[in-house]
Amino acid sequence: MKEKVILAYSGGLDTTAIIPWLKENYDYDVVCVCINVGQGNELDGLEERAKLSGATKLYVENVVDEFVDDYVIPCVQANAVYENKYLLGTSMARPVIAKKLVEIARLESAVAICHGATGKGNDQVRFELGIKALAPDLKIIAPWRCNDTWKMQSREDEIQYCKEHGIDLPFSADNSYSRDRNLWHISHEGLELEDPAIEPNYDHLLVLSVSPQEAPNEGEYVTMTFENGIPISLNGEKMKASTIIEKLNELGGKHGIGIIDIVENRVVGMKSRGVYETPGGTILMEAHTQLEELILDRATLTVKKEMANKFADIVYEGKWFTPLREAVQAFIESTQQYVTGEVKFKLYKGNIIKAGTTSPYSLYSESLASFTTGELYDHHDAEGFINLFGLSLKVRAMKMAELSKNN
Amino acid sequence: MKEKVILAYSGGLDTTAIIPWLKENYDYDVVCVCINVGQGNELDGLEERAKLSGATKLYVENVVDEFVDDYVIPCVQANAVYENKYLLGTSMARPVIAKKLVEIARLESAVAICHGATGKGNDQVRFELGIKALAPDLKIIAPWRCNDTWKMQSREDEIQYCKEHGIDLPFSADNSYSRDRNLWHISHEGLELEDPAIEPNYDHLLVLSVSPQEAPNEGEYVTMTFENGIPISLNGEKMKASTIIEKLNELGGKHGIGIIDIVENRVVGMKSRGVYETPGGTILMEAHTQLEELILDRATLTVKKEMANKFADIVYEGKWFTPLREAVQAFIESTQQYVTGEVKFKLYKGNIIKAGTTSPYSLYSESLASFTTGELYDHHDAEGFINLFGLSLKVRAMKMAELSKNN
Amino acid sequence: MKEKVILAYSGGLDTTAIIPWLKENYDYDVVCVCINVGQGNELDGLEERAKLSGATKLYVENVVDEFVDDYVIPCVQANAVYENKYLLGTSMARPVIAKKLVEIARLESAVAICHGATGKGNDQVRFELGIKALAPDLKIIAPWRCNDTWKMQSREDEIQYCKEHGIDLPFSADNSYSRDRNLWHISHEGLELEDPAIEPNYDHLLVLSVSPQEAPNEGEYVTMTFENGIPISLNGEKMKASTIIEKLNELGGKHGIGIIDIVENRVVGMKSRGVYETPGGTILMEAHTQLEELILDRATLTVKKEMANKFADIVYEGKWFTPLREAVQAFIESTQQYVTGEVKFKLYKGNIIKAGTTSPYSLYSESLASFTTGELYDHHDAEGFINLFGLSLKVRAMKMAELSKNN
Amino acid sequence: MKEKVILAYSGGLDTTAIIPWLKENYDYDVVCVCINVGQGNELDGLEERAKLSGATKLYVENVVDEFVDDYVIPCVQANAVYENKYLLGTSMARPVIAKKLVEIARLESAVAICHGATGKGNDQVRFELGIKALAPDLKIIAPWRCNDTWKMQSREDEIQYCKEHGIDLPFSADNSYSRDRNLWHISHEGLELEDPAIEPNYDHLLVLSVSPQEAPNEGEYVTMTFENGIPISLNGEKMKASTIIEKLNELGGKHGIGIIDIVENRVVGMKSRGVYETPGGTILMEAHTQLEELILDRATLTVKKEMANKFADIVYEGKWFTPLREAVQAFIESTQQYVTGEVKFKLYKGNIIKAGTTSPYSLYSESLASFTTGELYDHHDAEGFINLFGLSLKVRAMKMAELSKNN
Repeated sequence: MKEKVILAYSGGLDTTAIIPWLKENYDYDVVCVCINVGQGNELDGLEERAKLSGATKLYVENVVDEFVDDYVIPCVQANAVYENKYLLGTSMARPVIAKKLVEIARLESAVAICHGATGKGNDQVRFELGIKALAPDLKIIAPWRCNDTWKMQSREDEIQYCKEHGIDLPFSADNSYSRDRNLWHISHEGLELEDPAIEPNYDHLLVLSVSPQEAPNEGEYVTMTFENGIPISLNGEKMKASTIIEKLNELGGKHGIGIIDIVENRVVGMKSRGVYETPGGTILMEAHTQLEELILDRATLTVKKEMANKFADIVYEGKWFTPLREAVQAFIESTQQYVTGEVKFKLYKGNIIKAGTTSPYSLYSESLASFTTGELYDHHDAEGFINLFGLSLKVRAMKMAELSKNN
Repeated sequence: MKEKVILAYSGGLDTTAIIPWLKENYDYDVVCVCINVGQGNELDGLEERAKLSGATKLYVENVVDEFVDDYVIPCVQANAVYENKYLLGTSMARPVIAKKLVEIARLESAVAICHGATGKGNDQVRFELGIKALAPDLKIIAPWRCNDTWKMQSREDEIQYCKEHGIDLPFSADNSYSRDRNLWHISHEGLELEDPAIEPNYDHLLVLSVSPQEAPNEGEYVTMTFENGIPISLNGEKMKASTIIEKLNELGGKHGIGIIDIVENRVVGMKSRGVYETPGGTILMEAHTQLEELILDRATLTVKKEMANKFADIVYEGKWFTPLREAVQAFIESTQQYVTGEVKFKLYKGNIIKAGTTSPYSLYSESLASFTTGELYDHHDAEGFINLFGLSLKVRAMKMAELSKNN
Repeated sequence: MKEKVILAYSGGLDTTAIIPWLKENYDYDVVCVCINVGQGNELDGLEERAKLSGATKLYVENVVDEFVDDYVIPCVQANAVYENKYLLGTSMARPVIAKKLVEIARLESAVAICHGATGKGNDQVRFELGIKALAPDLKIIAPWRCNDTWKMQSREDEIQYCKEHGIDLPFSADNSYSRDRNLWHISHEGLELEDPAIEPNYDHLLVLSVSPQEAPNEGEYVTMTFENGIPISLNGEKMKASTIIEKLNELGGKHGIGIIDIVENRVVGMKSRGVYETPGGTILMEAHTQLEELILDRATLTVKKEMANKFADIVYEGKWFTPLREAVQAFIESTQQYVTGEVKFKLYKGNIIKAGTTSPYSLYSESLASFTTGELYDHHDAEGFINLFGLSLKVRAMKMAELSKNN
Repeated sequence: MKEKVILAYSGGLDTTAIIPWLKENYDYDVVCVCINVGQGNELDGLEERAKLSGATKLYVENVVDEFVDDYVIPCVQANAVYENKYLLGTSMARPVIAKKLVEIARLESAVAICHGATGKGNDQVRFELGIKALAPDLKIIAPWRCNDTWKMQSREDEIQYCKEHGIDLPFSADNSYSRDRNLWHISHEGLELEDPAIEPNYDHLLVLSVSPQEAPNEGEYVTMTFENGIPISLNGEKMKASTIIEKLNELGGKHGIGIIDIVENRVVGMKSRGVYETPGGTILMEAHTQLEELILDRATLTVKKEMANKFADIVYEGKWFTPLREAVQAFIESTQQYVTGEVKFKLYKGNIIKAGTTSPYSLYSESLASFTTGELYDHHDAEGFINLFGLSLKVRAMKMAELSKNN
């Protein structure tokens, strides 16, 4: 019996072409695994296609809820944003995929895992760090980095290679954007985006949303409820987090919310330019951030912002299965204990307009904030506060005055 | 001859009522100082009003350019944002005002400075820290904290008090929002904003801008050029930074840009809710951030984000005249050496849509970012990179596997 | 029946004098509470003394183990050090004392808590923040800040005041250092220490230890075992953490370990100079730090160092009972999961000399660290690593070279 | 005429063996460069040796003062310490060496630079990042990573290889510790140090210092003066920084100061164990830290500690010639403006005992620190300060109390 390799399989041209390549270059049985993280592609006929291409077996795993609950929600709780803008859509999904690949590798007693990520991107890092952390003994095969044996450089090459290996499937040779999609977002790279001086061709590009210009002229209200930093209801109806995201995607997409155009720094050292659509995620993150405004005290908020940046970096770099991610998440979770309440927004042509936030744990106190003196606040206290808050700078100023007098 | 007190004077009811109060409670001559930081209020007749109210003298100082060049621009270069949203409009202006008050106090050989900030806000802290740092010997008088002598709690009280002291000026008793305005922004507090559950009444509230709903149906392009992180031209025309902000205020205001609704944590410990309009500033900060995307490397960007948060906290807390602000600013300035280039935006109903960024110092390389292997990047290098980048987590995984095998 | 005030009572002159002062200025029954955190003072006769001085009741609470387990150990796990040097001895103890005072206040249905900390120190802040967080309704009385009624400025004044109020106890008028002691440390302030230019008079000053010069000429080995970051045995013998500290105090004290001389920044804004003896704590912290060297990966260690600084600041500022302290502690605890192993030291005249560290979870691998190539490490990988690790700086250098060529 | 390669040459066996290897594997003339950073080795006869081994030319460059002034001093000003203990001795020297290699490469119009660092260490990273940043066009050759052509794995192999290529120089086959030395420190790796469970054999190992046990029984005072964070005199005598370090090395070495034993995390991902002697550097860093205690305010100190950690990481990782290092250094330099004053220590058997610190810019104020109330400090102010400092936690406690009452 041959040893087995697990192939992260999407059914697309890239990963299909890998099947014959693996068989040509290694003496493995190829077990295809398609992980459904909400990418919304056609799964019908996938098994037939995999087998036709030479695979021994196909697993299709729907992990949407696990993805949302264990990977997306912690990022929401952290308000994790990479380099000011990127809501980590692709980054979040890679570790759950790596985990499933390893689980099936163990089930199949496979000796290797193969993925179709390129040698220039972040995803190779994320897949491989996940695999190394969970199954350090497994061999990892990355065809796109195999300069000696992987000779295909274009879709045409791949189609040609497939044909030569008896796989005659209907793939179009048309090159579009390079995309990655899951329940949380879709990313677009390539074509005109490769020049940051050029405005994206949104009409051509958008998949989950319309541009603000195309959005309805009427805004729409939406309310979300959170408990311990986890979204639990939408417009008054309880539903699981993945359904909330799904419905927010529709709402956000309709109103042109969450389209960003960014030049980001990849882990492997170069800058790349992409457009991301995260319609529901953008609303959800904004709602969560806003609820925290009411609940977290200043010092906690300040440190949490730093931790959010660290969490974003960790997730972006594919270091999910590490002690540091666990520790930062423990910090974040501790802060979420009282992040409970309701947020209301008006969505309008790309804008998320606050329309009221409430929480039983709100630290906002109208009587404190207003101008009157009350039981809780003696205006006179401010004098003592300022005197001590500014003591060191006053001492310094006096010292400097004294020195300049003496000189 | 009497000793003198310098009064930070706006011509409004609050600071006018302070004049007779100062004369009643202290044996000082009152020298009024009105610092113009672009608040756009009526300065005609101010001198007459001050004198009518009992002041000895009035200084009116236009410091708009100094305000912009020495206080606003460093915040733009830092991308300083307080608690995720607030562009520090009021905070930035306080130190330049404190500095001018001190300068005039020295000119007049005054012994005290008086300001009209309340005992619950941030501004008392900012004014007084500025004064302490620049003139530790000067006495500071804050009438609103003088529980024993300052008995006025409302506009009606103030008008009444003025009348009793022979000042019969036409102040309306109407209470509106509590506002602070300068070239960079206008803030609104009070009225319905005191309940964070309530959506702001934008029709009533907005001063510098219209809401996205009221903005034109056609977007409008704008280009800005920066040199060393400083804006130097707008739509192709060179102009000084204050003029750029002024013009961006018009553009941004017209397109509903830069309106935020926030619950923030004050220095003195309570949460408060405000709406801020920063139409031009929002565009300028976004342009600067975006230009940096092309130019700064990943590590610099990461640390700069942390420093931006610190800078924002320092400015918010009124600690402008401190060694820490100077040191953080030195860091920021060092990063701005190559932040030179052009940014193009489309403004549309509250949205700032990127329309292309260019810089001679761009680290973005199309050949590096695209999928092909070139001279600069060998795909195979990624394997070595990932192996070492993930070495410690692999070692850890192996150690854990070994331990669980032994147990 | 009178309302009650809880007085934090040590039996010393300062807190004894407060009893008649409280009775003179407030209409309260005074309930004294002496919290034993290992300060090692004489508790015999304390009840008699309290009652003689006018107290209604005395509680003596031994909380040494709670102090160690819930307050000291988290600081050890964090490696919390304030401003490079201070092991937080006094800071750690204040929250547990505040907690006990509040517990007894509730038991006694008291309406106020009184403490004898001065108006210039950190301890007032720590006590009061603890009380505010745990019992925001209780009144706090700090006699030393009551300028109008507390007229005693010296020990002589206090003795005189006691006598006038019928308390004739044998207090010496001798002023020595101002000290605070508990199981973890003793602090010294005052006398010659008030001038940082002067070397401390260690012969006069030291209580828990001898100076390195006076320590034995022979070193002594000590081993400690930790489990999850908690010390569990000393020299091979299992014992509870408080006993380990006690025994390490003897050992460290004997060998002149853990004496520091520091100028620190107080919360209330001024610098103060103190000498601290932390003989056992210094050894324990060092052992913990060292064990972590073997176990924590680089990224975790880096972030943990930042969190340690934050934890130290939080504890120093008396913000123990806050969400931020809880969240930071959650981070720390997560990192301690595998901090298990043994540390051996030689103690010699002020030096803690490492003599070997072992852990089942050590990430150190001799084969990896040595020069040979093994299965786990291909030297060639380093090339790929360096190429990508340095990619952005190379791209930048090329860009700059190109630009300077063109100019 | 052949193209040229620059070889970083020490005269030792390792780099000597590279000469014939380069000539065998590349068609280059070999130009040797020996950079003197104070490593104290024998430079006599070096030229003869290089030429005998096949080199075309030898440069010997004394850069000790440049090393100290431009690389060491910024680290002292930063108080840069890697992973709690390591004073960065080797890390500091690598960029200045890389810079000199590049300068000579330009002078000689060489096309490549070769170094003898192994494929497992940090130094390859540091050399190569330096070269990439300064001369991105130059080829880098690292023989120890050339698995295919570099077959020598031991000193015996190297001696044999040299002999085979006609180089008969007197190298001993004796393997000792692997060491790196410069003016600032000497590092030791290998032999018994490869097992962290084993106590170092200090009698065998130490080069610059004696162990505390062997140090004199009498302590010795030393004073240092700093100006703007730069050491300018020792024991009252003005001298340049490199001389101060040299003399402190003697003093520190004599008194057993600055020996550390550490398990550190290398950039390339594994842990390694080393012993470092930094006798003078340890004293100098301690003196600088201590002077800052008197001069820097609390907020500056806090941020500077974070920046010190970042600076240490940057230097350790070999990222000297980067915008981030420049920016962090700009921060540090800004803080050093007033770090001027004198520090006195007693050195005794491994201990650096503070014996007084003074500075014209000291923020320490005896009247402020002592218990009395003075002009500058009203004890009563502390009440207002604490009330606001603790306001948010009190508000939170009240909110929680209210909620639990209602439930």
